[in-house]
Amino acid sequence: MKNDLKLIQLERLYAILNRVYKEVPFYRSLFNRYNLDPEEFSDLTELKKYPFTTREDLQKNYPYQMFAVPLREVVRIQASSGTTGEPIVVGYTKNDLTLLAELNAKALQSMGITKDDVLQITFHHGLFASAFGIQSGAELIGASVIPINLEDPRKQLKIMQDYRTTTMVCTPSYAIWLSEVLLQTDINPHALMLKRFILCGEPFTEKQKEHLQSLFKVKVYDLYAVMEIFGPGVAFECREQKGLHFQEEHFYVEILHPETLEPVNPGELGEIVITTLTKEAFPLIRYRTGDLTIPLKETCPCGSPYLLTTHIVGRKDDLVMLRGIKFHPSQIELLLEAVTGEKLPFQILLYREEGIEKVLLLVALSENLFTDSFSAQENLKKNLEERLYLEFNLPIKVKFVEEGSFEKKNGKILRIIDKR
Amino acid sequence: MKNDLKLIQLERLYAILNRVYKEVPFYRSLFNRYNLDPEEFSDLTELKKYPFTTREDLQKNYPYQMFAVPLREVVRIQASSGTTGEPIVVGYTKNDLTLLAELNAKALQSMGITKDDVLQITFHHGLFASAFGIQSGAELIGASVIPINLEDPRKQLKIMQDYRTTTMVCTPSYAIWLSEVLLQTDINPHALMLKRFILCGEPFTEKQKEHLQSLFKVKVYDLYAVMEIFGPGVAFECREQKGLHFQEEHFYVEILHPETLEPVNPGELGEIVITTLTKEAFPLIRYRTGDLTIPLKETCPCGSPYLLTTHIVGRKDDLVMLRGIKFHPSQIELLLEAVTGEKLPFQILLYREEGIEKVLLLVALSENLFTDSFSAQENLKKNLEERLYLEFNLPIKVKFVEEGSFEKKNGKILRIIDKR
Repeated sequence: MKNDLKLIQLERLYAILNRVYKEVPFYRSLFNRYNLDPEEFSDLTELKKYPFTTREDLQKNYPYQMFAVPLREVVRIQASSGTTGEPIVVGYTKNDLTLLAELNAKALQSMGITKDDVLQITFHHGLFASAFGIQSGAELIGASVIPINLEDPRKQLKIMQDYRTTTMVCTPSYAIWLSEVLLQTDINPHALMLKRFILCGEPFTEKQKEHLQSLFKVKVYDLYAVMEIFGPGVAFECREQKGLHFQEEHFYVEILHPETLEPVNPGELGEIVITTLTKEAFPLIRYRTGDLTIPLKETCPCGSPYLLTTHIVGRKDDLVMLRGIKFHPSQIELLLEAVTGEKLPFQILLYREEGIEKVLLLVALSENLFTDSFSAQENLKKNLEERLYLEFNLPIKVKFVEEGSFEKKNGKILRIIDKR
Repeated sequence: MKNDLKLIQLERLYAILNRVYKEVPFYRSLFNRYNLDPEEFSDLTELKKYPFTTREDLQKNYPYQMFAVPLREVVRIQASSGTTGEPIVVGYTKNDLTLLAELNAKALQSMGITKDDVLQITFHHGLFASAFGIQSGAELIGASVIPINLEDPRKQLKIMQDYRTTTMVCTPSYAIWLSEVLLQTDINPHALMLKRFILCGEPFTEKQKEHLQSLFKVKVYDLYAVMEIFGPGVAFECREQKGLHFQEEHFYVEILHPETLEPVNPGELGEIVITTLTKEAFPLIRYRTGDLTIPLKETCPCGSPYLLTTHIVGRKDDLVMLRGIKFHPSQIELLLEAVTGEKLPFQILLYREEGIEKVLLLVALSENLFTDSFSAQENLKKNLEERLYLEFNLPIKVKFVEEGSFEKKNGKILRIIDKR
């Protein structure tokens, strides 16, 4: 089985390397620069000679230059939202969408989902792409799907009761919020029909998982999504709950040391690097996801020959993930500069209030801006908050403070204080 | 052609009446009460003996009692969001979803969309269902779809440029906002690849249509959606732009006088009443949509044998439609009572600021609430605004006023002041 997989991977790697060489100018010039001839590719170990693809490459080739098919064969385009001046775009052919549905169907089936299940899918619209992907998989199985886009956990709980939901699909932070609101109601969690949570979009801790499992008397499964690769379904947790299974017929996965970029041993932390084996519109070679995980030595009792790792344990960079929306401190920096015309010191405070994740942006005004009138400051604050909302689709409060009040480490202002 | 259509309708009406009689207890007892035996149905004119179905019927039979198939055959469930204590639900089988895609594909093709087109679909998440429906139709044609859920018109315009969008799908109010922002930029609208707007989710005026058409040098098409029936695609405007074509092989349409409920003549205003002919999961008999239109005497030069009407000219009731989200004043009333414990006089002010539709809720506090401290009032205001946001997914500002300041008519407080 494992050998069959390696054979499939080899054939598909050969095909995809040659296809991107032929169809994507970016890869052709990259491979030429490295003196690589994909025609000569004959062994899996040779892949390590090939250069990585990064998010920056996707940004530089925005919007359509990474596509390996003509635009008329592309039926869906997902644009990443919320990045300042650095958008990226992912395309799908009809076959890509079929594969997306199949990969998600397989993931959901491994979690025990059948056509008798009722899935309640609730994502912030920043995670639209994930909602589409999971929904297409569930519909392929024939399960009933309730796509619902509501913030209010009380309504979600009502829907969960009324519709006899068996499977709740959401971000980990939303699940925790739901659990906190549940305790304020007279709903008996054991009287719900709920069997499982599927968490997607953010890392979560073992403690959070256990809290949800014991409160709701359910199982909690992890579904790994990489927007640049495909959305959800790249890896998933099966009913054995031993960690993430990567769908290796379709993704060649390397777990590499974040600094040396050499393969790590089982038990060691590494960055997930993915080569797509079957994607038509938007194939990627050695894409650095930035997500960190730990490959496991054990195989899963489910019998899967797939690579097994722990959950995602973090991000290589300091990306902020909040309510399923991701942003970089550098985006805040750019926005502050765009609005005020100055590079201002700032700090991002993440905290939780009544179960909801919140962001406060502390900004130290320059002397120039501080000497303005109170109402001018109020206007600036309002203006900033509106721009932040438009940029990130998140309510971000702004507070003006003195520079001395910032939390520092080794004399440097900490960009992010995470008190969640 | 017209006769063929009538024959198809007759056969399908017979089948659907018998099916709901057999499968849906609500219809069985209703038909029995009216002494109707669907086995005897033999002529289209007999349908007028059948009772109407209303939104209230759907609410009373929430969540699953109107379904005509077992839940395990339902693959998608759309719940209406934003209604206080009166949710409704719509279900789809796999065949229903296929039909949804086909109806939308036909509508889009009639607007001239081919696989070379790039559709940018932008809806508030309250219109999720419409986004899904239009997307499935566009993918069936093989057009490229960019589903993007962003408020910021500047970003939408950037995407429109970068992705060479040919078709913008949005609500009329969003399109107007976009046009206003466009004029503040240095983008030359004629240099865009845009060919058409497809407007969905709200009525729009001829003036708005002309404004968009001349500014962008495009055509503007109307796509009619009824959430309870199917979502988008129930009726559409073809390239001739003569009005709405109803897809009568799948929907038996009556246009009835809003008071007498007798069929109106061409040129007269009437309410759209729909009987679904082919829906499996959630068939409806003589459903009163509450939408008003005017049937036209002319046939369309496109040769379609379908019923042709004007655009939707309004709603039978005083439903507020704002940014694609619908709500009733009665929902505001209930929410105010829930939060304050009192029935408070209020008025809903709809206005437009920088092209964006906004809502201000004016509330007259009772003596009891007025004598509280300033900070208590501030808290109440904040609390109300948060609850309103959770309820309607819309930012609604609250202002406390004296009762005397309300605009009245015949001594009665006007519930809605529409200054948009």
